[in-house]
Amino acid sequence: MSSSVFQVAVIKGDGIGIDVTDAALHIVEVALEKAGNTALEFLPIQAGAGYFKETGQDIEPGGEEAAGRADAIFLGAIGLPSVRQKDGTEISPHLRLREKFNLYAGVRPARAYPNAPQRLADPRAAEIDMVILRESTEGLFYSAAVHNRCPVDTGDEVQELLRITRTTTEKLHDFAFKLAQKRQERRGKSKVTCVDKANVFRSMAFFRKIFDERSVRFPEIEKGYNYVDAQALDFIRKPWEFDVLVMENMFGDILSDLAGGLVGGMGMAACGEIGDNHGLFQPAHGSAPDIMGQDKANPLAAILSGALMLDYLADKASNDTLALAAKIIDDAIYHGFATKRIRPQEFGGDMGTKAITREVINLIRG
Amino acid sequence: MSSSVFQVAVIKGDGIGIDVTDAALHIVEVALEKAGNTALEFLPIQAGAGYFKETGQDIEPGGEEAAGRADAIFLGAIGLPSVRQKDGTEISPHLRLREKFNLYAGVRPARAYPNAPQRLADPRAAEIDMVILRESTEGLFYSAAVHNRCPVDTGDEVQELLRITRTTTEKLHDFAFKLAQKRQERRGKSKVTCVDKANVFRSMAFFRKIFDERSVRFPEIEKGYNYVDAQALDFIRKPWEFDVLVMENMFGDILSDLAGGLVGGMGMAACGEIGDNHGLFQPAHGSAPDIMGQDKANPLAAILSGALMLDYLADKASNDTLALAAKIIDDAIYHGFATKRIRPQEFGGDMGTKAITREVINLIRG
Ligand SMILES: CC(C)[C@H](C(=O)O)[C@@H](O)C(=O)O
Ligand SMILES: CC(C)[C@H](C(=O)O)[C@@H](O)C(=O)O
Repeated sequence: MSSSVFQVAVIKGDGIGIDVTDAALHIVEVALEKAGNTALEFLPIQAGAGYFKETGQDIEPGGEEAAGRADAIFLGAIGLPSVRQKDGTEISPHLRLREKFNLYAGVRPARAYPNAPQRLADPRAAEIDMVILRESTEGLFYSAAVHNRCPVDTGDEVQELLRITRTTTEKLHDFAFKLAQKRQERRGKSKVTCVDKANVFRSMAFFRKIFDERSVRFPEIEKGYNYVDAQALDFIRKPWEFDVLVMENMFGDILSDLAGGLVGGMGMAACGEIGDNHGLFQPAHGSAPDIMGQDKANPLAAILSGALMLDYLADKASNDTLALAAKIIDDAIYHGFATKRIRPQEFGGDMGTKAITREVINLIRG
Repeated sequence: MSSSVFQVAVIKGDGIGIDVTDAALHIVEVALEKAGNTALEFLPIQAGAGYFKETGQDIEPGGEEAAGRADAIFLGAIGLPSVRQKDGTEISPHLRLREKFNLYAGVRPARAYPNAPQRLADPRAAEIDMVILRESTEGLFYSAAVHNRCPVDTGDEVQELLRITRTTTEKLHDFAFKLAQKRQERRGKSKVTCVDKANVFRSMAFFRKIFDERSVRFPEIEKGYNYVDAQALDFIRKPWEFDVLVMENMFGDILSDLAGGLVGGMGMAACGEIGDNHGLFQPAHGSAPDIMGQDKANPLAAILSGALMLDYLADKASNDTLALAAKIIDDAIYHGFATKRIRPQEFGGDMGTKAITREVINLIRG
């Protein structure tokens, strides 16, 4: 990336994926303008269940390669309940993209915003500010139907493989500690918790062992351990005590939804999937086709994912303008909640997709 | 079981397993006395991490066979953080027992008791009354270290197998629907939710397909579906809407702790593991060796597990006295919370193991 024009491959996908992608990219442009005008170029790519229904392919010809050449990929949402593979699983080209581009680091923040729903009775829930780091290329998803790797699949029995490799796990834990370092600048303290089931599974004892090995390179970061079942319980009892949590793919899928649930649900759940050479950004919510095009979807998860994308590009290109644009978006949303200028319908407020987007723009332009 | 003397194999295990087993079996006897005196005979079996440290074996010679001959097995808790296998995993003879005795149906109730901690802000949390049915012999635990089945285990990579079989899954879903029928008598309505990840994994689409096949035999029971990640979120948003939830082993491990966390944590988390010919009952909490012997452990999870055991024996032997004794325990605990006569230290109250046990006895004797 030598120029300061960045290419973003855009897969709007299905359902509300379309509504929220439009909102997010619009906000990204407004924030960049405010920050000082680094330009993004958007390259649309067709993919998803709707596209599959029309064409029999889940992504347009050459789409994966084009996405691979872009500086980042933005994805809305993929999937339609009525469009399935023969085995009953969903159309999931994005699972293939995670693997193909080696997007091992699934970054899923969960942060309490003022006046956004908090489900826990304890007032300390207002302090929740954590990131689930979900390994996103192996673990149990090594065996996702889209990869065709079930070792046994008969009418009597199906087996899946869960795979943990040293190479990926080392990178993942390094990513976790570096993320904690970055968060430490803002928050003054930082901790990485290794979430596993090392008491029962060799793969998980292996995962934890590598965590220990890598942690010695980051002596200034506090480290912790938790079994995944106990972690689920601790998210109910004291989620405000956690910062960065690193875990296997399937565990991260479950616990990131749980963490999101504590602070407003999937309408706020941003997600970045990051590898050594590629990054894909998407709201963690689904395509909710029942409400598509009705101005009902909460675009904030997508907008926050846009900020994650800007942050990723900023790191990759050592570009301060991009970093500033990311911060502008984050601050606008935080401030918008604090002042009740952002009131999503999803949370009992009066604002749909367009009104929220407009207000975030007002907040950014100041 | 032709006589009315029932044999219970008792594995106290490690740590507070010892404290809470004593409490639970005492209460079971008091309840039986009150209900009309069906006798239990307790057969102690040594097993656990402490036993392993002494002897190099995790269960006494002939212990598994003896447990297999008993009418039921009661287990306190097993595991000591300092005693591990060479691969870093814990001493887990109970995982082997689950498999050996084919204890596929892991029954884990989560019910809100009056005045017990509820973590959610929504007042409807007081209505939580559900059962997680965790398949307990296969799924990802097929590959638990204790079974020695990792297909790949090198310094660079470890793989595990997740296995779903038709035979076990059919029995599991039947168990779920029958449990719902039984609960319907008490609650007037009943629903079974199949929790899976059928959108991504063939094994899970298979699990759901078998759910559908078996459900037609139980047309009077409502059925529902949820993906495991969405279910974790729904436990935050609306846990009071669920009744019986049936799922794979690892998912059930995580979601049952989560469900337990909503209604007081592991100190209330009872567990039964039931097969066609055997049943094992244990509190779902760990051995907490740091507080063992200090009169601090909350014995209620163990006592409630004792009630599950009585209920199981009652069904197995069509014995009304046993069923009555189970109900006597459940009612005593519910009433004890409602009247604040039960105030566990764990929940900020003033009662330790012995005081709670004494008070449950008082409540039973009336
Ligand atoms: C839709 C599904 C394939 C996906 C996943 O499990 O990864 C989703 O749940 C997510 O969390 O991104
Ligand atoms: C201790 C461990 C082996 C066990 C399990 O995972 O089954 C425990 O977490 C449980 O839930 O009973």
